[in-house]
Amino acid sequence: MTHHVTSMLETYPKDLDGLDRQKLAECMTACFECAQTCTACADACLSEGMVAELTTCIRTNLDCADICATTGRILSRHTGYNADVTRAVLEACRAACKSCADECEQHAGMHEHCRICAEACRRCETACAELLASLE
Amino acid sequence: MTHHVTSMLETYPKDLDGLDRQKLAECMTACFECAQTCTACADACLSEGMVAELTTCIRTNLDCADICATTGRILSRHTGYNADVTRAVLEACRAACKSCADECEQHAGMHEHCRICAEACRRCETACAELLASLE
Amino acid sequence: MTHHVTSMLETYPKDLDGLDRQKLAECMTACFECAQTCTACADACLSEGMVAELTTCIRTNLDCADICATTGRILSRHTGYNADVTRAVLEACRAACKSCADECEQHAGMHEHCRICAEACRRCETACAELLASLE
Amino acid sequence: MTHHVTSMLETYPKDLDGLDRQKLAECMTACFECAQTCTACADACLSEGMVAELTTCIRTNLDCADICATTGRILSRHTGYNADVTRAVLEACRAACKSCADECEQHAGMHEHCRICAEACRRCETACAELLASLE
Repeated sequence: MTHHVTSMLETYPKDLDGLDRQKLAECMTACFECAQTCTACADACLSEGMVAELTTCIRTNLDCADICATTGRILSRHTGYNADVTRAVLEACRAACKSCADECEQHAGMHEHCRICAEACRRCETACAELLASLE
Repeated sequence: MTHHVTSMLETYPKDLDGLDRQKLAECMTACFECAQTCTACADACLSEGMVAELTTCIRTNLDCADICATTGRILSRHTGYNADVTRAVLEACRAACKSCADECEQHAGMHEHCRICAEACRRCETACAELLASLE
Repeated sequence: MTHHVTSMLETYPKDLDGLDRQKLAECMTACFECAQTCTACADACLSEGMVAELTTCIRTNLDCADICATTGRILSRHTGYNADVTRAVLEACRAACKSCADECEQHAGMHEHCRICAEACRRCETACAELLASLE
Repeated sequence: MTHHVTSMLETYPKDLDGLDRQKLAECMTACFECAQTCTACADACLSEGMVAELTTCIRTNLDCADICATTGRILSRHTGYNADVTRAVLEACRAACKSCADECEQHAGMHEHCRICAEACRRCETACAELLASLE
């Protein structure tokens, strides 16, 4: 994914408004991977015998998948860059990833999908925080 | 849309964590309508002869459509409510709607789709702000 | 929603490739409403005590919400109209709505959210079928 | 991306309804990559000086991004598998990828983003066709 993201970044016909190209590519990649992982984790939770104990996890996964997908799309656009929107979306993505990582970590010992998903969420939370820090 | 949104809210089997039911329904409705309007406005801009002067408008429309759709989905979920995520997403949606309203207003005198879209964005910006205020 | 959808349709600067304007507006409206209703139904199912018996319903709701949202967006665009893509997406949306209506109807006697959701899915299934018929 | 997709597939607690695991992983990966590439290509086209000649390309990119994202999500779910919905969505995704590849190929000599995007679309078109063939 990083390869695809990076090769498309290089074809953008104008400049990237001073954005850190590597941090941007890492954050976009983390967003798309986290969106996929959270969608799969929600579905795996749904097929567990103990689904009744995983309903908060499923909901958190669904929110995180939606915000990560939207953040990945917005970071893929550079035309008419608006720093306020980018910052607010990155803050929302960071909050959703933190919340989903916290929740999935509680089930990581019992469910491998939650363990992998918690890792993807932490990676995306960190990538959002680092991109945010580079914007200021 | 408000009717649909409200009738589904009434069927939720648990309580709504003290959320203001009317402000919630108004915000959800505004999000879905704004997502549709921004998608249509981006496409209408794309078919204008002067598209080269509307590229920032198109990009802002696309971002706003994505965030509004995600916010509308997240507000449609109540299981395992997380106030931090809800607040951060509403802030992002408010910022995107403000940005899109500001941009579309500049073209409102010339393009009716931008005039209508600016109104939908302002309505959604206000609905997000009012729901946010009611959370605190 | 129909009002918003219709007023944006009227501002489109070019012609609508011979599409039946009313059937188009009805289908777009049904798609956005069904997407919201399915998202809310999935979440309401998740909060039911008998969630373990509703996992197929939740999954079907999530798929239907995704396809309806995508179909609503695609129908909101008219620039560079491609009949093959429109037809294939309408077929997919019709199949997802049929599948979700069939599933929700089985729980309609016990859960009001499933009863309302089944109606929204049938309405959208019909609207897709009628728009498809008008294309041929 | 394939690595992430595959490791989540392995954690699914039930069986995968006889789906070809490798074709499934390839198709999911192609869908997520194509969704990102089409989103970036639409934005790069928007920043080209000759944007007025790329409006059909932008619209086709936006549709393809939406369908690929939805298809990637649906393929990430296995609970309550419905072959009719899966087939119809794969057909729609194949049609959108074909349409976008055809369009981007026309600009591939002039715009590197269109060249890369055409490749991503063809890869996804093929992956959908192969997964469809394996279902029958």
